Amino acid sequence: MRASQFFISTLKEAPADADITSQKLMIRAGFIRKLAAGIYSWMPMGLRVVRKVENIVREEMNRAGAIEVSLPVVQPAGLWQESGRWDTMGEEMLRFKDRHERDFALQPTAEEVITDIARSELRSYRALPKNFYQIQTKFRDERRPRFGVMRGREFTMKDAYSFDRSAEAAGASYENMYNTYCRIFDRLGLTYRAVAADTGAIGGDRSHEFQVIADTGEDAIIYCPDSDYAANIELAEAVAPAGERPAATAALTKVHTPKVKTIADLVAFLNIDIKSTVKALVVEGAEGEAVLLLVRGDHELNEVKAEKIAGIKKPLTMASPALIREAFGANPGSLGPVGFKGRMIADRTVAKMADFVIGANEDDQHYTGANFGRDCAEPEVADIRNVVAGDPSPDGKGVLAIQRGIEVGHVFYLGTKYSAAMNATFLDEDGKPKPFEMGCYGIGVTRILGAAIEQNHDDKGIIWPDSLAPFNVVICPVGYDRSAEVKAAADSLYEALLAKGVDVIIDDRGERPGAMFADWELIGAPHRVTIGDRGLKEGKVEYQQRRDATATPVAADAILEHLLAKLA
Amino acid sequence: MRASQFFISTLKEAPADADITSQKLMIRAGFIRKLAAGIYSWMPMGLRVVRKVENIVREEMNRAGAIEVSLPVVQPAGLWQESGRWDTMGEEMLRFKDRHERDFALQPTAEEVITDIARSELRSYRALPKNFYQIQTKFRDERRPRFGVMRGREFTMKDAYSFDRSAEAAGASYENMYNTYCRIFDRLGLTYRAVAADTGAIGGDRSHEFQVIADTGEDAIIYCPDSDYAANIELAEAVAPAGERPAATAALTKVHTPKVKTIADLVAFLNIDIKSTVKALVVEGAEGEAVLLLVRGDHELNEVKAEKIAGIKKPLTMASPALIREAFGANPGSLGPVGFKGRMIADRTVAKMADFVIGANEDDQHYTGANFGRDCAEPEVADIRNVVAGDPSPDGKGVLAIQRGIEVGHVFYLGTKYSAAMNATFLDEDGKPKPFEMGCYGIGVTRILGAAIEQNHDDKGIIWPDSLAPFNVVICPVGYDRSAEVKAAADSLYEALLAKGVDVIIDDRGERPGAMFADWELIGAPHRVTIGDRGLKEGKVEYQQRRDATATPVAADAILEHLLAKLA
Repeated sequence: MRASQFFISTLKEAPADADITSQKLMIRAGFIRKLAAGIYSWMPMGLRVVRKVENIVREEMNRAGAIEVSLPVVQPAGLWQESGRWDTMGEEMLRFKDRHERDFALQPTAEEVITDIARSELRSYRALPKNFYQIQTKFRDERRPRFGVMRGREFTMKDAYSFDRSAEAAGASYENMYNTYCRIFDRLGLTYRAVAADTGAIGGDRSHEFQVIADTGEDAIIYCPDSDYAANIELAEAVAPAGERPAATAALTKVHTPKVKTIADLVAFLNIDIKSTVKALVVEGAEGEAVLLLVRGDHELNEVKAEKIAGIKKPLTMASPALIREAFGANPGSLGPVGFKGRMIADRTVAKMADFVIGANEDDQHYTGANFGRDCAEPEVADIRNVVAGDPSPDGKGVLAIQRGIEVGHVFYLGTKYSAAMNATFLDEDGKPKPFEMGCYGIGVTRILGAAIEQNHDDKGIIWPDSLAPFNVVICPVGYDRSAEVKAAADSLYEALLAKGVDVIIDDRGERPGAMFADWELIGAPHRVTIGDRGLKEGKVEYQQRRDATATPVAADAILEHLLAKLA
Repeated sequence: MRASQFFISTLKEAPADADITSQKLMIRAGFIRKLAAGIYSWMPMGLRVVRKVENIVREEMNRAGAIEVSLPVVQPAGLWQESGRWDTMGEEMLRFKDRHERDFALQPTAEEVITDIARSELRSYRALPKNFYQIQTKFRDERRPRFGVMRGREFTMKDAYSFDRSAEAAGASYENMYNTYCRIFDRLGLTYRAVAADTGAIGGDRSHEFQVIADTGEDAIIYCPDSDYAANIELAEAVAPAGERPAATAALTKVHTPKVKTIADLVAFLNIDIKSTVKALVVEGAEGEAVLLLVRGDHELNEVKAEKIAGIKKPLTMASPALIREAFGANPGSLGPVGFKGRMIADRTVAKMADFVIGANEDDQHYTGANFGRDCAEPEVADIRNVVAGDPSPDGKGVLAIQRGIEVGHVFYLGTKYSAAMNATFLDEDGKPKPFEMGCYGIGVTRILGAAIEQNHDDKGIIWPDSLAPFNVVICPVGYDRSAEVKAAADSLYEALLAKGVDVIIDDRGERPGAMFADWELIGAPHRVTIGDRGLKEGKVEYQQRRDATATPVAADAILEHLLAKLA
């Protein structure tokens, strides 16, 4: 490509409403332009990167045996009513009526449509397994769109859906997709982690998120540096501390704690170690009764784990102040197990504590020296907290660390959730109809651009991995219009690279060198060759990789081989 | 591709609501599945054809110097209000409110969005010319979707928009796109015609439709077999008959014509040549007055031509019965120029008629022997009728013929319609802001599939041109699972064709030969090789092109070269 025939439009400043580095850089580099909140036009430079992601995703999906389809963006309400999601999707699903007053939605995802196709097309077990995918426009009416293309409203997603005869076969399809996703993110050149994720109502352990590692990520990823263990914070198991609970040594003592409402207040007021305190939280049980949850003062309740406990109201519902006063005779801030007659669930760590400090169920009163079994009942014990860095790894192979990630893919075993709801069955070998065992597999195609930039940038701009760059090599001739030698050398290298199939652009716009270099550092071309009169006189050109601090002189007649070696 | 790893789903019967051959065949061949009225899922086989169209369009657009972008499907109302089209687009533009009650529409086209980008990105004449295109989902809420993907609601369109400094430069951009469209439709392997089309309010003569010729086409295409002349029926000029108007020979005679309401009634009742009759139509003038239009009895009023006449109300409005009774003292069915004092416009053919038969402005009464100048005023003369086959060609080079076509592309010079309305200007060389001169250029990507099938099919199914076929070559082994020789020969040819880059599928499903052949005739693979035990014993396989009535034996060791020659 010649820059003069392409469209390069860089900006010195990002707009004031850009709220994250990748968004600022994508706008400044001319990759996207905002049309409305969470809705962006893809400019020529950005679209090239989108296409590169799409191509890698498509190639690997095809290699895995998945078959491409394209499902409508505008979907009728009927199928969503069959699955029950018309009522449960909430306002994120944008709905409207057509001119005949029929209900439609913009596709946020396509389980219903593909399940409808499967039930009419996949009649027999002989047609299975099948995995259909599409790379298509999706729309989710986010209440607060932000982070540019990472939490936009209109975006491109690759969504795949597998149909199998049995849970076992569905497991093989899941494995196939898991491995395919690893190949895709390897080829994209990103540092990522596949982390086990919660499966919600479906149950089982077959759900993984693919997270691009970046300090700015929204998600906390738990992993063990000494093993393969990785999970998201919702799922990561907090194991019980080793050993038995210490024996009680202190007497239960009521302490006046005026104005102490939080654990921080309590620690400061009593000047104690936070690890000796226990936090009391009250949620509703299935019958609307108060259930007391106990986690150590420095730990956080994990709501996903708590919600999964039998007898707890779903979705997890914090008890109202009125219910708390009725059950405890006190206001939140001074609650505890002593004297409480209801159900009580202690986190595994709390269950190993002795002589702890806890609310006394009287306003402005706490107990020190509290002990289970002596001062109150023995609690039920469960894992109900978020892990923290330094916790033992659940696989026993070291301690956990935490890093931040951006979710760019998700593989999920669905079981018969949709096929049962929509009566989507096939005739099995025994002649009986059975519901499909399904899986779904998403990749946020446009989101990957944002994630890649969050992971790979510096103060000059974007640093693309080779596989994603809009152009892999930029040739920057200094004085292209002035010097016949420079023009000849630049054109000759350009033609030679094109002949080798290299994705190269020659910057023939006639910009000053400083502006030209700044543009390509902002855009993030991985490899730059600078050709100028002075160098050519000595038979030299300059090569600079995007992460290099300075350029390296290379013999003009060796630059082609030099580049090809770098690109290999 | 191996058929066992792909998805082939043919049907014996088309659904009852399929209303045109291409739609029936696309459904039967498993290319599309209906999701809702005018909304189709693209199945794997159909999507392969869509991608082939997209690739040819993209390659030729790039070659022409156009630059690809991707504009959002969901567009905010604001820009459409700026251009004024929010009010004029009608119900075809699907509108809705997002969760924050802001107005949006699904893109039916993208002039507004791209003009908005141009006004912020193309600041100087140095940035011009530019031509941006996208291949993207469009939505038009057709009142009565029909003809499958040809008049669907959701569809894929390639839309391009050019920005130029001057009308002259815009003309060059237009020429470039016209020539590019010819290359695209040539490469698609379709028989088509570029026909001059009406430019409506923009004026000028720079608008052409690209019509795929098919008997089932919705559009009438007027062309001259002896010259290059081609226009759509809205635009094609009906020239005046040669020579002077004959002298009047008959006397004006009132005839009682009971129950005669139409020209057909009149011709039958009086037993006369329809070419001696004149049809009276009444429309509203700009002030709401009655204007009488006269066309010969066998001719049809051309509403587009009539609407362009100065002083005629726009859009063209037929006079109400009340207005007609007030102006003529009679009901429709017996109207005419004799005694009428208002404005009268005769078609050029009518203006050359003498002794004609016309309504008498009395119910159930007509005149015979009517003549202009003698029995009524001389009329204004204008071209207000549709041409008919046999009319003289406007270029004087023979007579016109009519064929049917399906519009698959349109190039249009827009002038400053959008740039002026949206204040989209660039700084010209003289330092002054000027509005862009624009053009727009559409291709109905998914519609092309329907049009190609309407043009190319037989009673067995689709006949794809090589460039569009989902697979170019199908290998049909008879007894793939039973015969090691057949399997070896088929696999070997398959591998050899893949190595040559041929888009080949091997049908390894184990279907009976009859069912297998019927599938591929329905799907429309252009080239078929059948490999069976009996032939192989004599060193033969069979080759059949889709249009061939029978298969031809070819030496097994020559089939690769044979195929490559056919594909060349």
